[in-house]
Amino acid sequence: MSQPNSAAQSFRAIDVIRKKRDGVELTAHEIGSLVNAYTKGDVPDYQVSAWLMAVVLRGMTRAETAALTDAMLHSGEVLDLSSLSAKKVDKHSTGGVGDKTSLVLAPLAAAAGVAIPMISGRGLGHTGGTLDKLEAIPGFNVNLSVSDFRRVLETCGCAMIGQTAEIAPADRKLYALRDVTGTVESPYLICASIMSKKLAEGIDALVLDVKTGSGAFMKSEKDAAFLAELMVETGERMGKRVIALITDMDQPLGNMIGNALEVVEVVDILRGGGPEDLRELCLHLAGWMLYLGGASKTIAEGKQISERLISSGKALERFRKMLELQGGDVRSIDNPKKLPQARHTTTVVSPRTGYIASMQCEQIGTACVILGGGRERKEDSVDPSVGIVLHKKVGDRIEAGEPIATIHYNEDSRAERAKQLIVQSCEVAERPPSHKRPLIHRVIGKAGENV
Amino acid sequence: MSQPNSAAQSFRAIDVIRKKRDGVELTAHEIGSLVNAYTKGDVPDYQVSAWLMAVVLRGMTRAETAALTDAMLHSGEVLDLSSLSAKKVDKHSTGGVGDKTSLVLAPLAAAAGVAIPMISGRGLGHTGGTLDKLEAIPGFNVNLSVSDFRRVLETCGCAMIGQTAEIAPADRKLYALRDVTGTVESPYLICASIMSKKLAEGIDALVLDVKTGSGAFMKSEKDAAFLAELMVETGERMGKRVIALITDMDQPLGNMIGNALEVVEVVDILRGGGPEDLRELCLHLAGWMLYLGGASKTIAEGKQISERLISSGKALERFRKMLELQGGDVRSIDNPKKLPQARHTTTVVSPRTGYIASMQCEQIGTACVILGGGRERKEDSVDPSVGIVLHKKVGDRIEAGEPIATIHYNEDSRAERAKQLIVQSCEVAERPPSHKRPLIHRVIGKAGENV
Repeated sequence: MSQPNSAAQSFRAIDVIRKKRDGVELTAHEIGSLVNAYTKGDVPDYQVSAWLMAVVLRGMTRAETAALTDAMLHSGEVLDLSSLSAKKVDKHSTGGVGDKTSLVLAPLAAAAGVAIPMISGRGLGHTGGTLDKLEAIPGFNVNLSVSDFRRVLETCGCAMIGQTAEIAPADRKLYALRDVTGTVESPYLICASIMSKKLAEGIDALVLDVKTGSGAFMKSEKDAAFLAELMVETGERMGKRVIALITDMDQPLGNMIGNALEVVEVVDILRGGGPEDLRELCLHLAGWMLYLGGASKTIAEGKQISERLISSGKALERFRKMLELQGGDVRSIDNPKKLPQARHTTTVVSPRTGYIASMQCEQIGTACVILGGGRERKEDSVDPSVGIVLHKKVGDRIEAGEPIATIHYNEDSRAERAKQLIVQSCEVAERPPSHKRPLIHRVIGKAGENV
Repeated sequence: MSQPNSAAQSFRAIDVIRKKRDGVELTAHEIGSLVNAYTKGDVPDYQVSAWLMAVVLRGMTRAETAALTDAMLHSGEVLDLSSLSAKKVDKHSTGGVGDKTSLVLAPLAAAAGVAIPMISGRGLGHTGGTLDKLEAIPGFNVNLSVSDFRRVLETCGCAMIGQTAEIAPADRKLYALRDVTGTVESPYLICASIMSKKLAEGIDALVLDVKTGSGAFMKSEKDAAFLAELMVETGERMGKRVIALITDMDQPLGNMIGNALEVVEVVDILRGGGPEDLRELCLHLAGWMLYLGGASKTIAEGKQISERLISSGKALERFRKMLELQGGDVRSIDNPKKLPQARHTTTVVSPRTGYIASMQCEQIGTACVILGGGRERKEDSVDPSVGIVLHKKVGDRIEAGEPIATIHYNEDSRAERAKQLIVQSCEVAERPPSHKRPLIHRVIGKAGENV
């Protein structure tokens, strides 16, 4: 195996690998050269995977993280949405169970006059993905061209699509390599991956929803806060207003888990109903989006405006408009029967009387994957109709034999496995938990000072 | 990039990578599976390079190191020399400047009745290699088949060849990958690489010469001792008698550096002459080889026997015999003019009067590489005729204008650069160094207890 790219370039990949291995800070030029050469195919996978492992184990400084994000961002197209007069704001969640806030927030903030150019991902592992939820709506097209994306955004103030080939190609190539080389779990690499894609949207501001708890990738609040700080600082270094909310994912968000079911719950929220926790988080995130998008003077005012946009029906109207523009069947808003329906339902009952003391949230997400509602591997397809409706949340009183959840399923054997997992995941105790976890643990970012 | 080998095998490379990344000890089965799958081409380079970097940064336990060595050893042929009644012993040096002891030791120990099946390497970087020195002898063939190797060994008690394709193919593949991924510098990987090849020789015992000082790969005695302990324990775990001598490489060994020149010095030693340091180290290593090979009851007796074999001419006779059997021009023993000769010589003189306080040994090795006597890259060819003859060593008195060294060269520009490097590398002080570094710093290994 000869030394690749030794003669042609002023930088040598081997030197960058050794430096990182030895814990020496890399320059922006070195990181940029490596990312560019890798994206072009001038540096082989085996050198980059060694470098990635060195990054996982040695970490990165804030300057290195920003340089990596910048290099990945500029590996592809950066949307120029400056022709839109509205401020462009996006929201990104690190992933959870039952987290359908994006579908609420895009039309809600758009109705307030903020432009929301949202490029989202698919579910992986126990977490759901915005694209899968959108595709549960018959006909909804998440694969718009950049010009169609821009047209929808201009017309209704929000547009929701999937990753395109033009956006951050370095991230796509690096992520595929990280996935097979044990180098996914690094806050620095996660930060660069998320931020490079979000900043490519041409946004002015970003609200990050960093999940913590048993259903999050970052189980501990400490790890979640570390990632949040990294992302905020990286965005701020690039001149964006970025705020991160550390929010609870120790139990599913809302009551519905599963793609079509979650669309139903989104419509409930947009009609002014829906479960309390989901409603509260949506309003809070919307408050921030409106504030950063210049549609309100404070967070509190942003929340009030959002509440009014819901009660007046204007948010739902905007959602309907987006569905129309992206090919989705608008009848599914008024008639949930138009959404994919599972053939069977069955209930999961409590084996004893008491209080729900805790829920192993990741297991509940996994139960939905087992039903076919998520994917274990990227290649897997998703059944939009299946899922879980929770009748109880942490702290609720429950009687022996009373339903904890209803399972929507198409295959008996899958339902049986999911049922077992849900029973196992819910701890029923004699007394309610003494401490109620807050929905919002912390707010991180300069944009949150003095508001 | 899809997950390779996920379905076909009970082990998944990604799990082994993650475990090592997280600092968890791997089982022998996991390490063996990874090495075997990689050697067969079932695991791609990019997964193994990530694993190698995790090994570099996380380290390995002794059990893991032994398992890796064992897996690499059994990736190819392990010679069965049990038909030879003599004990089979080898010596291995971690590499230095002017280190030509192998060419002395193989015939010397063979003359004492120990069988020496020596498989050696080439020089790389500032260090010389046994194969390059042997090939300075016109006609000498280091590329014998295993059956010819065995025949020479049976006939004269020693044989010296290069790596064959059959021996430890996993090491060849792993080394090539390490070379381009910044994963060479790990004592665990160095240990497994050396020991897998040496143990494949079918030996009973091994003497390791681990160099320390400015001309060694392990500059500090601590690092050298750590590697030595690793190699000794790995060999002992595999039922071999292994001893490691930590020896000095803070200045070149002997006076001659360069392939043909070193052959001249080897013959000097075998004739009972030669420089003191080289002679002393050869006798000491030979003492150990004879002791471990059952040809003496103590190290001291082994040294005495070796001295007698030199003074009686029997060691030189054995060297002549080996040259005959491997096609080397035996006239070069009696007439150094038959060895490759450089066209020109020039002297390097001291700029001042005083004592040689220190020599930057790696720089002197590099000066020889600049002359063409070594290789910066594996693909480079070597000029056997060039080199350096030192007239002074550390501690010697020198007058201003007195020659430090004579350079044998073929190209003026190279000679000039080498000259500068040699002058820079020799520190001339008013007083001699207060402390003389010992030739042998430490002896490591159970085989050395109570002798």
